[in-house]
Amino acid sequence: MELMEYLTSTSKEVSELFTSYYSDEKTVLSQASNYLLNVEGKRLRPALFKLAAESVAPGSSKDIISGALAVEVTHTFTLVHDDIMDGDISRRGRPTVHVVWNEPIAILAGDVLFARAFVLLADTHVDSSRKIEAVRILGKASEDICEGQQMDMAFETRTDVSAAEYLEMVRKKTGVLYGTAGALGALLAGAAPDIVSAFMTFGEHIGIAFQIQDDIIDLTRDTAISGKDQASDIREGKQTLIAIRAREKGIDLTPYQHDLTSEEIQEIISLLTDAGIIAEVTAEAQAYVDSGIAGLSILPDSMEKELLVRIAQFFIDRAY
Amino acid sequence: MELMEYLTSTSKEVSELFTSYYSDEKTVLSQASNYLLNVEGKRLRPALFKLAAESVAPGSSKDIISGALAVEVTHTFTLVHDDIMDGDISRRGRPTVHVVWNEPIAILAGDVLFARAFVLLADTHVDSSRKIEAVRILGKASEDICEGQQMDMAFETRTDVSAAEYLEMVRKKTGVLYGTAGALGALLAGAAPDIVSAFMTFGEHIGIAFQIQDDIIDLTRDTAISGKDQASDIREGKQTLIAIRAREKGIDLTPYQHDLTSEEIQEIISLLTDAGIIAEVTAEAQAYVDSGIAGLSILPDSMEKELLVRIAQFFIDRAY
Repeated sequence: MELMEYLTSTSKEVSELFTSYYSDEKTVLSQASNYLLNVEGKRLRPALFKLAAESVAPGSSKDIISGALAVEVTHTFTLVHDDIMDGDISRRGRPTVHVVWNEPIAILAGDVLFARAFVLLADTHVDSSRKIEAVRILGKASEDICEGQQMDMAFETRTDVSAAEYLEMVRKKTGVLYGTAGALGALLAGAAPDIVSAFMTFGEHIGIAFQIQDDIIDLTRDTAISGKDQASDIREGKQTLIAIRAREKGIDLTPYQHDLTSEEIQEIISLLTDAGIIAEVTAEAQAYVDSGIAGLSILPDSMEKELLVRIAQFFIDRAY
Repeated sequence: MELMEYLTSTSKEVSELFTSYYSDEKTVLSQASNYLLNVEGKRLRPALFKLAAESVAPGSSKDIISGALAVEVTHTFTLVHDDIMDGDISRRGRPTVHVVWNEPIAILAGDVLFARAFVLLADTHVDSSRKIEAVRILGKASEDICEGQQMDMAFETRTDVSAAEYLEMVRKKTGVLYGTAGALGALLAGAAPDIVSAFMTFGEHIGIAFQIQDDIIDLTRDTAISGKDQASDIREGKQTLIAIRAREKGIDLTPYQHDLTSEEIQEIISLLTDAGIIAEVTAEAQAYVDSGIAGLSILPDSMEKELLVRIAQFFIDRAY
């Protein structure tokens, strides 16, 4: 099966399940909570969950599918709260929850989603000891995600973030929930601890790679392709891995912290390409993908394992 | 044992446990998360949890004490987020989390506390099926609490809140977590479903009574005694049960929505006393306490049951 076909099918399934779970709720707060859930995204985390479960025990994902929803709901909760903190007004092409309603409702909508995540885990049809271990993993992962968001915000006022700090931040902010998606799928499908652990590491590594790739895309992809404001990270002086590696080599990007012309952006790209920075950072992202994939060697060959490898590579091959 | 002695002892125990669980954490976010946990309050919810557990199975509370912490941590999470929403700058005599740090950190600190609640439930030493049922109860209760806070905020812009709406709001906002405290204590101690359910109802009813009593105290207690700005609810036109019952009897309190002199406050009290409103609302609070206590008849007699009855009565006997 093609990866895109699998993702499309999972996305449809997840959306239908959310509709069947929550569409009867009519209060303002439930509307705000459901708002982003009902925007069909790539649903990469539920896909990872399902692939992990099926790679461990074919046919297992049906009984534990609410675990996949738990991960997606947790992801959505973090988006709603992050958008408040970051003052972002648009998400997935729609105004953010705190813009459509207001900040208090957005705080509560995130809280409701987070509460639902644990109820969804309790709703999976497996033995309770696996469910309670899933609760523990999701709870601890959520603490890490909050810590990652806090680090990300704290970095905004610093100019000396190290590569190790950056990697720890993106591991917690992004990697941990991808890791949790795979780990919970495997755990609830009955996997042994070493396989659960392998999926946690796999997700963390490809999540780190995803964020590094985001940094590369921001700089190198034309706005017409990426849909994002090109080189905004440089303009804002953001502590990306590119900026950090450049600083390590004595390249000062601070003179570019202003509105940039196309010529200036090309100048920066040339500067960083010539210094080997872009190649180095690209190689770092690829190395995280490779080590993630290597960790899956513990699994027997299957279509699902193949799709997991493709997801990993997709995280850095995507152009936007 | 005297109730105050029991509460003091529980409060000390809970504070020591929080210190042993979380004091090693040194990040800004963990400091913000721990800030309110470390202010010793009455710890009424952990006391309810312990009394419920011990009334069901003497000696049981030791193995499940982290469940009591889970409830207190959930309570603290709601305080941190509510203070942001309500713009409150002081809590338990100290500046609120969003004042000491900032709003983004306060949002995250609340989220971390909420995540910890579920990890703490997973940490109790009982069979997993009871733990996962506890997770489900706490998750659903948290959704209710958010809904209660949203109703409370929505009522601020209305002048036609019914008594039924008010009672539903205070049940969700306040009652449900008292109910959860007792229900989880009983459940994790091994109680049968009808006893777990009795504790949920008990907590909901005494929580409703607590809120009604708050409304009475606001109006009738001198600031010197209550520490609160007397009659602020009337000044602000708040939809309390007193205001709602007055409106039902055709008494218009809107002319008093301004800074009030002592004479005006006495005038309002006389007006409402003469119309029988204060006696009626006081009787409603007592009725909730009585029905809560009646529900405990399912339990065998014990010191713990006696203390539960005293807590219930304390909720409306307190002067502030």
